[in-house]
Amino acid sequence: MSFETTATIASFGGKLLKLAHQAKSTSCQMKLNLYIPPSASSSKPAPVLFYLAGLTCTGDNGAEKGFFQNMASKKGIAVVYPDTSPRGLGIAGEDDAYDFGSGAGFYVDATKEPYAGKYNMYSYITKELPEALFAEFKELDGKRVSITGHSMGGHGALTLFLKNPGMYKSVSAFAPITNPSKCPWGEKAFGGYFGDDQKSKWAEHDATELISKFSGETDVLIDVGTGDNFYKQKQLLPENFEEAAKKAGKNVKVRYHDNYDHSYFFISTFADDHVEHAAKYLFAYKLGQRQKL
Amino acid sequence: MSFETTATIASFGGKLLKLAHQAKSTSCQMKLNLYIPPSASSSKPAPVLFYLAGLTCTGDNGAEKGFFQNMASKKGIAVVYPDTSPRGLGIAGEDDAYDFGSGAGFYVDATKEPYAGKYNMYSYITKELPEALFAEFKELDGKRVSITGHSMGGHGALTLFLKNPGMYKSVSAFAPITNPSKCPWGEKAFGGYFGDDQKSKWAEHDATELISKFSGETDVLIDVGTGDNFYKQKQLLPENFEEAAKKAGKNVKVRYHDNYDHSYFFISTFADDHVEHAAKYLFAYKLGQRQKL
Repeated sequence: MSFETTATIASFGGKLLKLAHQAKSTSCQMKLNLYIPPSASSSKPAPVLFYLAGLTCTGDNGAEKGFFQNMASKKGIAVVYPDTSPRGLGIAGEDDAYDFGSGAGFYVDATKEPYAGKYNMYSYITKELPEALFAEFKELDGKRVSITGHSMGGHGALTLFLKNPGMYKSVSAFAPITNPSKCPWGEKAFGGYFGDDQKSKWAEHDATELISKFSGETDVLIDVGTGDNFYKQKQLLPENFEEAAKKAGKNVKVRYHDNYDHSYFFISTFADDHVEHAAKYLFAYKLGQRQKL
Repeated sequence: MSFETTATIASFGGKLLKLAHQAKSTSCQMKLNLYIPPSASSSKPAPVLFYLAGLTCTGDNGAEKGFFQNMASKKGIAVVYPDTSPRGLGIAGEDDAYDFGSGAGFYVDATKEPYAGKYNMYSYITKELPEALFAEFKELDGKRVSITGHSMGGHGALTLFLKNPGMYKSVSAFAPITNPSKCPWGEKAFGGYFGDDQKSKWAEHDATELISKFSGETDVLIDVGTGDNFYKQKQLLPENFEEAAKKAGKNVKVRYHDNYDHSYFFISTFADDHVEHAAKYLFAYKLGQRQKL
């Protein structure tokens, strides 16, 4: 068995598994939470929603405070809550800042030393983790996967969706970093993981750049609170993403909510909507009938 | 103003206030959270649900992880999340154990030194806090109040309801300590706050003793998980409470849920039910019509 189950916790009629496994892409043990809804079984596997968390978080924050299980249970959707970086690699300085290194993997494969070859959260989330999960948990339907995330994890959700046409049935995000090449968090992370001279790598992981060139259809749901200090400080820049999408003729809906901040109080308030957004696509192919989305 | 508002956080359409005030009954500053639903105003004040938290908790645990705001917003109910003890009094040893002293006030007025006159959580929750809140927040209807709680807070909810006929419209509890005189947690707390020779005081704060003598009608909702280690270790003893209620002809419904544990994953799963239970009584007197409960 590739996963160790360290706890099984009843939640909203289903079960939340605390998992750990040795990951090759990140050269360390990775922890995560997996919610399996009550309707799921090996004969009726559940579609899967990945929730990518933000800076400083682990897979626990969303599972404890996001309230995704409420609607996921009702809809019959499994939820994967991965960690946000490798842990304990012993790289000098990796634990020094809240916005770089551990807890801040930014869902990229680093190319710059000393992070190259180890900080590979892009490969981990798009390839190693889903392959391992779908091989082991027959209650999960690896052919129906959607993705969402918060802040740095919203950046992750948007870029992973846009870089991998067909991999995810839908995408949504809470207060995402949408134009990392042009905000302080992104500049620091991309500078550290790719190097300041590798601007082509930056563009490859910038949702605003990616949507300009995306060839498929989109229906992107984004929620942002106008009381969010990071929005005010221009770390998120959803307007840039909206504008790029509009120019490219892509369907992106950004909802601005008065007074809401960047916290899990904001996420939990709109969690139902994001699970329902995913459900619309995860259940679009039912009973063998291919419906047009 | 008796309260300092240290933060105002948007949540489920309403607002969560982080409050602090100097409390006379506990001789210290007390912190709490107050959720005001979107429907509340001074011309249409909302009824109020007190949520009493368990050992080690503060007013933050329920507000962040309990999921009460979801249904409270829909029903138009305010939620008060108080702290679980005085803080920082400097009593020797008060911070040494998770189940006694700070974080473990047990919702009693201590009579034994060095806690006497300071650890007065009973007076604080039943008198000082509601009086201060209802004087200051005109969006709250102090005439319509219900109470619920978890573990030690479930004990608090049950005993405060049973000791004060008419004060609360309804009561419910998650995994409550129902017979503290007969479980290790209760023996330690009551021994420390009242003394081992004051068994009459113990009985005055023991829900199983109290329901035997309660003269009013009851409709008590209790949820317990069968996977709860504290239930298995006989800290909760809901069967004793059920039996006493049955003998006294009181209506108590204990729901035993397979596999659920003692955590906020358990609480959040059933939070909607407890808010709805309170709503049934908080809104029983509508439009001037007195309905029989």
